[in-house]
Amino acid sequence: MSAADHAWMAHALRLARQGLYSTHPNPRVGCVIVRDGQLLGEGWHQRAGEPHAEVHALRQAGDRARGATAYVTLEPCSHYGRTPPCAEALVTAGVARVVAAMRDPNPLVAGRGLERLRSVGIEVASGVLESEARELNIGFVKRMETGLPYVRAKLAMSLDGRTAMASGESQWITGPAARSEVQRLRARSSLVLSGADTVLMDGARLTVRAAELGLDPEQAELAVKRPPLRVLVDGRQRVPLDAPFFQAGPALVASTSEAAESYRAAGHELLTLATAEGRVDLPALLRTLAERGANEVLLEAGPRLVGAFAALGLVDEYQIFVAAKFLGSSARPLLDLPLDRMSEARELKIEDIRAFGDDWRILARPAG
Amino acid sequence: MSAADHAWMAHALRLARQGLYSTHPNPRVGCVIVRDGQLLGEGWHQRAGEPHAEVHALRQAGDRARGATAYVTLEPCSHYGRTPPCAEALVTAGVARVVAAMRDPNPLVAGRGLERLRSVGIEVASGVLESEARELNIGFVKRMETGLPYVRAKLAMSLDGRTAMASGESQWITGPAARSEVQRLRARSSLVLSGADTVLMDGARLTVRAAELGLDPEQAELAVKRPPLRVLVDGRQRVPLDAPFFQAGPALVASTSEAAESYRAAGHELLTLATAEGRVDLPALLRTLAERGANEVLLEAGPRLVGAFAALGLVDEYQIFVAAKFLGSSARPLLDLPLDRMSEARELKIEDIRAFGDDWRILARPAG
Repeated sequence: MSAADHAWMAHALRLARQGLYSTHPNPRVGCVIVRDGQLLGEGWHQRAGEPHAEVHALRQAGDRARGATAYVTLEPCSHYGRTPPCAEALVTAGVARVVAAMRDPNPLVAGRGLERLRSVGIEVASGVLESEARELNIGFVKRMETGLPYVRAKLAMSLDGRTAMASGESQWITGPAARSEVQRLRARSSLVLSGADTVLMDGARLTVRAAELGLDPEQAELAVKRPPLRVLVDGRQRVPLDAPFFQAGPALVASTSEAAESYRAAGHELLTLATAEGRVDLPALLRTLAERGANEVLLEAGPRLVGAFAALGLVDEYQIFVAAKFLGSSARPLLDLPLDRMSEARELKIEDIRAFGDDWRILARPAG
Repeated sequence: MSAADHAWMAHALRLARQGLYSTHPNPRVGCVIVRDGQLLGEGWHQRAGEPHAEVHALRQAGDRARGATAYVTLEPCSHYGRTPPCAEALVTAGVARVVAAMRDPNPLVAGRGLERLRSVGIEVASGVLESEARELNIGFVKRMETGLPYVRAKLAMSLDGRTAMASGESQWITGPAARSEVQRLRARSSLVLSGADTVLMDGARLTVRAAELGLDPEQAELAVKRPPLRVLVDGRQRVPLDAPFFQAGPALVASTSEAAESYRAAGHELLTLATAEGRVDLPALLRTLAERGANEVLLEAGPRLVGAFAALGLVDEYQIFVAAKFLGSSARPLLDLPLDRMSEARELKIEDIRAFGDDWRILARPAG
């Protein structure tokens, strides 16, 4: 791989990122067509059902694609889905070389697209900026590899690890820049998952609001045209249908008892997923959501529900927004996760810390 | 001020920082003598009782100092202390211009050194890189301006704001890089202040250990030759004289009752400072320590004592070392600081976040 290969792939990744808010359930993919150091065509996948990145780029390059190199951030597809396979399009266009950032993460089809290209004499390479490409589609990759979505838990706490006063008194403890970042986290997710405590106590709607995204108009429009599904874990069906959450649009409720025809009548869907102990079966919920195409799940809930996900090892990433204040030792904890011994401590790796206005965000993932 | 003035003052500040671990109770000061863009002499203050920065720099410059510019990180002294006044030395050397980063912070003498220089026709300027100069001597400046030392609270917590398990089970939760930084924090401080809980539970000695400082040999030697005083708040005299803390060398104990001749016999000092409620009078303790020359105090204690300092508004800076793990919601809190209402929350400003090995340190100061 040359420095030029890296540079063009970096450009293809930048293009792919433009689909961050809109490609669900598909991956974000970018493509550039290059010959003799000249950019001949570029494209990125916008929305499911619309053309893939390769098609946009080949269309722009036209006849000049013959003998050129195509850089794609994901192995070109080899199967007929809602659109024809991109591997065939590349063959037809007569490109001489295809460089992919990563292979298809689905173990059942990985390599087939590249194999098809190789079989007609096209030079093929894979693995250029692979870790960036995997990161960009971290949820899609996890779903393909494991059948589960990537779960991001969003938390907001004071510097002493507290979320609200003991009385329940609570308010936004972080500022507008942090809240705008949370809006972007929602918008990029396949779905936002919350619990009855949060929805009842805070009157949370968990919607994406274009004005708060802080994106350019094109991106914001793509984002609001593909809003994340809102999922409520409410085992005992405590949240009334006139709550702001339900008034804000159709939602999916995960509960423990088949009951409420009323949800369906109000335009919502009810899933019944109970454990033997009579709680909502969270692993089963995630599997069901993945089957429906959920790549990235944003878990925005209170200490109990996030604690339950954490205790089951179901959280892939914590995004902890830290407000620069102390709420004191009688305030509510970050997670309801009672541990008795130091040896039970959950080891994490802090991947990134950055400022959002006066607040800071810590991005941590379970270690090992 | 020219760009050259800034560059030479930055150099003088770098020199001054070499005294970080050794000048107590004096400020850290650096000086350079420059003419026609040539560095003629440089110096920094090493230890109390030894020559000031200006004397070293003038000695190196010799006769060439005549007509030169002297850059000093603090207004030259005008009074006879343990050494003759530096303002006189500059006059005698015949410098043409003196640039100070900041005026003497003692409001009773501020400006006298510069005034003396101006009175003999030397061109005088002040305020170049002043905020850096004040930061370098943040404790000295606070003591001069208010009669109180600068109190830095060192805390170590998990990502969910916990310090130890509910059972009391505890261990170093941060790694060697963070511990080395704590050693440097101790070494730069005039004194290290702790409480009976910490000294009893952890067997803490709160000493500076040369091998753990991670400094070059010259700096490490200066640091260990001027160890910080170790101060123990122990109202009920719970810590026995055979505890590791007392075995590690002479210490100062702040208590509520005049009692133990035994402390003095063992080489320690006892201060009796009781409030009407029978607790150690923490503000009075800090005033007494400042009267003894304490510039920077490192508060290394448990949640109760740090919580008590915080509740009284006596903490100027929090250095929070964060280990990337969750200890869970039944673990012990960062601070024993019970607050009932959101409006009582302590507002802070995060000044810096940086990695130390796998851990992170958050530096925060009370806002406003």
